[in-house]
Amino acid sequence: VVKTREAGNNVVVVLSAMGGETNRLLGLAEEIDPQASAREMDVLVSTGEQVTIALLSIALQKRGCKALSYTGGQAKILTDDIHGRARILNIDSDRMHAALEQGQVLVVAGFQGTDNKGNITTLGRGGSDITAVALAAALKADECRIYTDVEGVYTADPRIVPEARRLDRVTVEEMLEMASLGANVLQTRSVEFAGKYNVKLRVLSSFVEGPGTLITNEEDYKADDMEQPLISGIAHQADEAKVTLRGVPDEPGVAFRILGPIADAHINVDVIVQNVSIEGLTDFTFTIGRGDLDNTTELLNKICVELNAQDVTADSNIAKISVVGVGMRSHAGVATRMFKALADENINIQMISTSEIKISVIVEDKYMELATRTLHQEFGLEHAQAE
Amino acid sequence: VVKTREAGNNVVVVLSAMGGETNRLLGLAEEIDPQASAREMDVLVSTGEQVTIALLSIALQKRGCKALSYTGGQAKILTDDIHGRARILNIDSDRMHAALEQGQVLVVAGFQGTDNKGNITTLGRGGSDITAVALAAALKADECRIYTDVEGVYTADPRIVPEARRLDRVTVEEMLEMASLGANVLQTRSVEFAGKYNVKLRVLSSFVEGPGTLITNEEDYKADDMEQPLISGIAHQADEAKVTLRGVPDEPGVAFRILGPIADAHINVDVIVQNVSIEGLTDFTFTIGRGDLDNTTELLNKICVELNAQDVTADSNIAKISVVGVGMRSHAGVATRMFKALADENINIQMISTSEIKISVIVEDKYMELATRTLHQEFGLEHAQAE
Repeated sequence: VVKTREAGNNVVVVLSAMGGETNRLLGLAEEIDPQASAREMDVLVSTGEQVTIALLSIALQKRGCKALSYTGGQAKILTDDIHGRARILNIDSDRMHAALEQGQVLVVAGFQGTDNKGNITTLGRGGSDITAVALAAALKADECRIYTDVEGVYTADPRIVPEARRLDRVTVEEMLEMASLGANVLQTRSVEFAGKYNVKLRVLSSFVEGPGTLITNEEDYKADDMEQPLISGIAHQADEAKVTLRGVPDEPGVAFRILGPIADAHINVDVIVQNVSIEGLTDFTFTIGRGDLDNTTELLNKICVELNAQDVTADSNIAKISVVGVGMRSHAGVATRMFKALADENINIQMISTSEIKISVIVEDKYMELATRTLHQEFGLEHAQAE
Repeated sequence: VVKTREAGNNVVVVLSAMGGETNRLLGLAEEIDPQASAREMDVLVSTGEQVTIALLSIALQKRGCKALSYTGGQAKILTDDIHGRARILNIDSDRMHAALEQGQVLVVAGFQGTDNKGNITTLGRGGSDITAVALAAALKADECRIYTDVEGVYTADPRIVPEARRLDRVTVEEMLEMASLGANVLQTRSVEFAGKYNVKLRVLSSFVEGPGTLITNEEDYKADDMEQPLISGIAHQADEAKVTLRGVPDEPGVAFRILGPIADAHINVDVIVQNVSIEGLTDFTFTIGRGDLDNTTELLNKICVELNAQDVTADSNIAKISVVGVGMRSHAGVATRMFKALADENINIQMISTSEIKISVIVEDKYMELATRTLHQEFGLEHAQAE
């Protein structure tokens, strides 16, 4: 912080609580009532960040750096009143601008705000990232830097692909695809937020100095006239399961009658595939989080009877491998190359799902590492300028 | 709290931090910088009470009691901006009145407020008592109950006088005399505050049910047409020391030239006695906290030279015994009875100091218990209606 300030930047720092502190506070409440009211839980857990902002301000001041701590309320972060998972409605940045002009480093409690009645709210998971992005937007910051335990966004998980390379930049859309595919560097919500408000996000390591990875909207990419790589990265995800309802009468409304009860049970569905109809019957397959498999199978068994379908099968030995890149929009043949490379390794593809900037396949989980390495090599991701 | 609420009262609860928590937080800051800024220390330590208000609210709600926590800022406790020892300037009670009308128990963080810029402030020692009294005044509460580790105010220290009796009530003035004399049930500042704003204070035990002791202004006493006892209690104090400057030229300004440097060194002086002048020389004696004895003696030795006085003597083997009671205003002879009772026990009186509602004597400390018991008996304090 001091180094960034001394380089002539105005600096606003957003902090989380100390490691373990939020859980300690939750434990205190749990002892009294596991169903404690969300309002009071917010009053309780928001103290975690209030402690760290004071301590960092003290540490900065000790190094001769002017600093002021702000709670969410003091930073005028206005949220709705949904305690525990509030959304930011507005940030009045006048006071912060005035303090920055006086040369203060502002140290703001992440993860919290106040509603329009002055009640303390918390933003839920990833809340500190959201606070940082929202403040960057409100203050029109040049850049929002998220310090994490990784050095940036990689072309693949370096634990699986040793040649994986840190990307200098990715687009918001690519990052969203990669985040939701298991490259859990940032919460999806904060990336969306950054994209929406055109905040330049940079992911860096808290422990190792380096440029990290810049996440920008695609227009900024083009404006900077950088050559866009065809493929940015290979993402993998190992915690899904696949369920299939076989022999479903192929009638209008069937998809809804199958997925409606699943959604009602708050089970998130990922890839959905419906085969072409043969003799008026079709197979309906989708993937879910592995933890939801039992619930899903139970629900599907009921639906199977209602729809007079044939049977339900489930398989949790699957993995999802995705090729992600905005460049594939303008290049045909990515899918073909992907499928051929996998076939050359005798990896059978169970399901396929595509979007504009991503192709995902479901394979047997024992092939996950091999498939990831194969595709990483196929698209030349170990080199700085892919393809 | 639930019992008081269920008896049909509107209830506002003021809380301190959990035992040890404030010191834990101070320790965290100490590790970084022992001279941390007062503003940030207030942000830090105010979290202690924020945790307890959330937890108590959760506990009350679990028992089916509607409850809402308020930080000092949320309770609209406006203070000046002297961090660490702020004074309350105003309390806007509209929001609290509205919540009370909805049947909520309000759980307010003691010891804290915000200044007119929204900075978090703390009130310093005894701050939670002050918060309670200030809220009682602002909300025009029937009574402000301070829960402590004693069952009330006693006619004497029960550890010294087994027959000591809990007083049903004392006046603010008596309480102030007793508090400053060592009956440290309440911080002097909160008693003064209660007297000034006409708040009825009741001191009770957190652990044993009972009526406690009501502390009211004298007018309320009279209005209730209760007979005022002559003497309310016997207070003692064992942690003082006595210093004497002998053979001081008896000239105008001498008292100031002696006590000025003492005050400049932030040493509190208690009893001051100047003997009548004999041949233009006088002895000047005063008492101080025992911990200040060395500093005081050193200062007095310098002053002794400057004033061309004879010498300095010091004695830390002293105790102060005080008879306190608003009733003594209208009754002559209390001093005579006190001095005679002590003489009958061969207890020599070294110094005497009087106010309208108190007579204090300094005696050798080995007589402290005997003197206290003797006076307790002399004024019949073991009986409900003294004299």
